[in-house]
Amino acid sequence: MSEEMVFAKRQSVEQVEEGTDLAPKFDSDGLLPCVTTAADSGEVLMLGYMNQEALKRTIQTDQAHYWSRSRKCLWRKGETSGLKQKVVEIRIDDDQDAIWLRVNVEGDASCHVGYRSCFYRAVNSESSGKPLLKFVEEEKIFDPKMVYGDAPNPTQL
Amino acid sequence: MSEEMVFAKRQSVEQVEEGTDLAPKFDSDGLLPCVTTAADSGEVLMLGYMNQEALKRTIQTDQAHYWSRSRKCLWRKGETSGLKQKVVEIRIDDDQDAIWLRVNVEGDASCHVGYRSCFYRAVNSESSGKPLLKFVEEEKIFDPKMVYGDAPNPTQL
Repeated sequence: MSEEMVFAKRQSVEQVEEGTDLAPKFDSDGLLPCVTTAADSGEVLMLGYMNQEALKRTIQTDQAHYWSRSRKCLWRKGETSGLKQKVVEIRIDDDQDAIWLRVNVEGDASCHVGYRSCFYRAVNSESSGKPLLKFVEEEKIFDPKMVYGDAPNPTQL
Repeated sequence: MSEEMVFAKRQSVEQVEEGTDLAPKFDSDGLLPCVTTAADSGEVLMLGYMNQEALKRTIQTDQAHYWSRSRKCLWRKGETSGLKQKVVEIRIDDDQDAIWLRVNVEGDASCHVGYRSCFYRAVNSESSGKPLLKFVEEEKIFDPKMVYGDAPNPTQL
């Protein structure tokens, strides 16, 4: 696409909620959250963040792009791991400050720890006082050391 | 639950990613994002935010609680509208800074505009230059004026 992509200006609640203008609201860091689900199963794979450029490139290329908050750079999902996400549908919410991407994943995994989904643990609400997590994915799809080598882990304490 | 609920301290990447401690990371505003899906269909209903109290009450009561950023208060989903969300499962992601709630919704709607999902529009990526939205839900489930009356609209420009 040679033409520069432009988002609409946010002018009224009616325009934002009931209209057909794409008028996204980025937060004070220039980001909005993006929920990514598997188009076939509906499973939530990850929650990422997009800046304007990531959203534009995702729309233009049908490949999921995010803003990496740990690496502070535009991030085409799969550029290191090969685990690309091909976009099936892009949805936006009522006040246009959150994105929902439905994708097909090459390699069947989206989590840097090696699991299919980043949400591989559930809260066991039976445990009182100090709740514990239980694993809901049985095993990893890939070995992160093989895929990422010595690249810094994005998880921050 | 009479005992005060305590989250674990974040001590290592291994503990956070591979362990069973619930050690959530709240951002500088004390919040973390929460994706809420319909337990039956997998549809993404909304993206909300939780502070510590909202997460604790959600775990303790099996009713979805959020932090309302527009109203700046704890918000038990459905307290005004009656559209409560009964929690089926609570998941947390690899670095424990995002929640995925799977819920059953009383009244079959979760969006203050009246639709089933807040994500009732998709980006039409065929439209070049200035992308347009298309509605993917045919009609509203309820009339927001009947449900919320004159309460201020939470959407901010």
